[in-house]
Amino acid sequence: MPAFTVQNFMMNSNGFTAKWASEKTRIILNSVDMKEIKSYVESNKDRFLDELFDLIRIPSISASSEAKDSMKRAAGFIKESLIAAGTDSAEVMMTKGWPVVFGQKLVDESLPTVLVYGHYDVQPVEPLDLWESPPFEPEVRDGRIYARGADDDKGQMFMHVKAFELMNRTGTLACNIKFMIEGEEEIGSPSLKQFCRENKELLKADIILISDTTMIAQDIPSITVGLRGLSYMEVEVTGPNRDLHSGLYGGAVGNPANLLAKMIASLTDENNRITIPGFYDDVMEVSDMERAEMAKAPFDLNHYKSTLEIDEVVGESGFSTTERTGIRPSLDVNGIWSGYTSEGAKTVLPSKAYAKISMRLVPNQDSKKIDELFIRHFEKMAPAGTKVKARSLHGGQGYVTPIDFPAYRAASRAIEESFGKSPIPVRSGGSIPIVSDFEEVLGCKSILLGFGLNSDAIHSPNENFPLFNFYKGIETIPLFFKYFVDELK
Amino acid sequence: MPAFTVQNFMMNSNGFTAKWASEKTRIILNSVDMKEIKSYVESNKDRFLDELFDLIRIPSISASSEAKDSMKRAAGFIKESLIAAGTDSAEVMMTKGWPVVFGQKLVDESLPTVLVYGHYDVQPVEPLDLWESPPFEPEVRDGRIYARGADDDKGQMFMHVKAFELMNRTGTLACNIKFMIEGEEEIGSPSLKQFCRENKELLKADIILISDTTMIAQDIPSITVGLRGLSYMEVEVTGPNRDLHSGLYGGAVGNPANLLAKMIASLTDENNRITIPGFYDDVMEVSDMERAEMAKAPFDLNHYKSTLEIDEVVGESGFSTTERTGIRPSLDVNGIWSGYTSEGAKTVLPSKAYAKISMRLVPNQDSKKIDELFIRHFEKMAPAGTKVKARSLHGGQGYVTPIDFPAYRAASRAIEESFGKSPIPVRSGGSIPIVSDFEEVLGCKSILLGFGLNSDAIHSPNENFPLFNFYKGIETIPLFFKYFVDELK
Repeated sequence: MPAFTVQNFMMNSNGFTAKWASEKTRIILNSVDMKEIKSYVESNKDRFLDELFDLIRIPSISASSEAKDSMKRAAGFIKESLIAAGTDSAEVMMTKGWPVVFGQKLVDESLPTVLVYGHYDVQPVEPLDLWESPPFEPEVRDGRIYARGADDDKGQMFMHVKAFELMNRTGTLACNIKFMIEGEEEIGSPSLKQFCRENKELLKADIILISDTTMIAQDIPSITVGLRGLSYMEVEVTGPNRDLHSGLYGGAVGNPANLLAKMIASLTDENNRITIPGFYDDVMEVSDMERAEMAKAPFDLNHYKSTLEIDEVVGESGFSTTERTGIRPSLDVNGIWSGYTSEGAKTVLPSKAYAKISMRLVPNQDSKKIDELFIRHFEKMAPAGTKVKARSLHGGQGYVTPIDFPAYRAASRAIEESFGKSPIPVRSGGSIPIVSDFEEVLGCKSILLGFGLNSDAIHSPNENFPLFNFYKGIETIPLFFKYFVDELK
Repeated sequence: MPAFTVQNFMMNSNGFTAKWASEKTRIILNSVDMKEIKSYVESNKDRFLDELFDLIRIPSISASSEAKDSMKRAAGFIKESLIAAGTDSAEVMMTKGWPVVFGQKLVDESLPTVLVYGHYDVQPVEPLDLWESPPFEPEVRDGRIYARGADDDKGQMFMHVKAFELMNRTGTLACNIKFMIEGEEEIGSPSLKQFCRENKELLKADIILISDTTMIAQDIPSITVGLRGLSYMEVEVTGPNRDLHSGLYGGAVGNPANLLAKMIASLTDENNRITIPGFYDDVMEVSDMERAEMAKAPFDLNHYKSTLEIDEVVGESGFSTTERTGIRPSLDVNGIWSGYTSEGAKTVLPSKAYAKISMRLVPNQDSKKIDELFIRHFEKMAPAGTKVKARSLHGGQGYVTPIDFPAYRAASRAIEESFGKSPIPVRSGGSIPIVSDFEEVLGCKSILLGFGLNSDAIHSPNENFPLFNFYKGIETIPLFFKYFVDELK
């Protein structure tokens, strides 16, 4: 049972400085919690894993129009898991797209409320032949769970369900808790903003808690304080109205594949800066002082390169690797296809060429504005003999979390207690577009308490999640709840 | 029965000029042949088409490793068709790849020999969804046969089998005939050169007769006197050792799809000239006089553009559209693929990017040398952070047919009689790599008596062949045999 009471802290809580100075003392006072947490996790660890595996086995790929049954099953699974863990209620709520699972346990309306956000949908699994075990048949190898969604986000999201179960069963839940688990994160959360608008009251909370990011390493915990925005486009270049024989027409008719290559090539210059007019207008430059501060985070470039088996890193001139993903925008071809791509040789001059091109944006760049700049630029540079179309597939704004606010401090204390080390604040290159929407619609900030590792290969074949991180997450989350309530006193 | 006898011509054949001057007379003298031909074709036209359809229904795609059964069936079909048409013998002869069908009828060893070359293999059919009727279920719409292989080369090759049947049944075969029908033309005839080496005596002939090219229009017959060579490459660019999350790594790690686009873009300059060092070294420049002569061939640029639904043609500066395909080399991306290419958005930074890139070469450019120049150049320009591989998938030399030799004159006379118009000699942009090999190994020239049209969409969805051309081909071929024997006297 919890040793934590309001009284424990009153005597130490004489303001901000005092609080921090006394932290060590308090942790000792409440050490029984950690012990209790560890004991509960230890007794239930096999069941936790079995349940997660059952969830992972459902191939809930939101990008696939054939996933209807799987998406329904995954949502139902989350609902039942929440009820089993102890929510007062849980329901699968319809949207224009895939449904949202909402559940809550309201302890006392005078207490703070934590809204846990996560997602039950996963990325597609192609290329399938590179998986060492089938993506939807989870298995543990070398202490890691291998499966699509093992980390992103089934593994990380499910830690919250189990941490809630722990708090509930041990009577240590110190505040109200709500869950909003969506099914469209991997396709840009097209319905969630509207869902938030329609359910503002239901979703009311003091903080949104999200585990969908990484930490630097198991022994270098970190908290993500910045996210990049996203503009994700699909482009289509049409040359002749049908595939042509490359002998009879080659050299005389514009080849859309050659021309798309030229168009893509022109989107970045020799310094790897993006050439779209106006693209950098709203980029917030980070001061030299801040950059010097960020540079203190441990980063081993040689290890980074050898892990990826590349001889050199490639990015915008004048910035380090962590800066290139943390504070600078980028442009990547995520997919390209045209003509004959099967075995052997086919001498075709293709009629059409396509690409998926996305840009990561930094805070203050507006995703919709960048969409427009891209579309205008790309269509304007349509080469002679072609028709060019560009359209936005999805996008979202960047985000910066303040580190001087209660949720950050609570997360920092929780990690320090469970990992034995104070976390480092880092800016991630990834995007969770919905985070800035939450702030806009719900007026509520988010804290990114992520337990993934860069080596988890999310979005790739052989996605995995270390068992260490899975269980450590379940241990850390109850501490976050405890310290968050404390910080708000 | 044939009105053609040696005597008919002796009186007129007092040398080259006399021959041409007297041509009209001779055609009148032998007009009974044309009537007989037309009568035979008319009586058998439905059966000819049914038989062709049976051949087309066999999906003999040589590029597919799953086509073994179909390839065997197609070869067997040709063999049986030859025997039924009247060859002394016919057999399916093994090679290291797909087999060659050989058949012959030897009339008299003192007479000339025509070796008919064709192929029973066809191109792949992707993209399947663009076909208006299934590619291997031939049907006639608006006077055209729609199916893969309708023209290239089943339709054109089968005309020879039926023309031989006609000559045989009507007792008008004026010389020896051999058939060599291969199954690897669409993959670059990798086994045929060796087959020729091993069967030099068997294949001995005075001319190789090939129908695998086009004519300008049904009312503008032409004979192809030039073919381009081919260098067909596949390239692979590897960035990181696995697909990465484009948020976590985008901007910091070289993206092989972006970089492949830059590499392809750099292969041609702003004048659409190929930038590979040494590429143009062996290009034979065509004199202004010759170019002026070629420019007389009818060509309607507006019609060309409107047929393809393009607003402008694109090609090497300083050359016309027909020159760009006829006398100039070209470089085309035939296929490109990387990353995520399915429905929706996946934020992946791909590990690998691939392209199939082919170059059409003009006579005097050596395909093997161009392969080497390409591979050296492409691998040398591997961008930082990538590994690049390039390999040749297939290739062949260009070819120019003299117009001042017996086979060309015979073809010209045959076409003039059957079409009522003298044919125009043209240089085609396509390649039949084996033609220059025939000359090298067998010491025998080829004549390209093609009956296809550019609108036949060979290598494309909805390949088709006009019934008019199919039957006109069957009518013209016996006349070629007649005049070829005459020319050699």
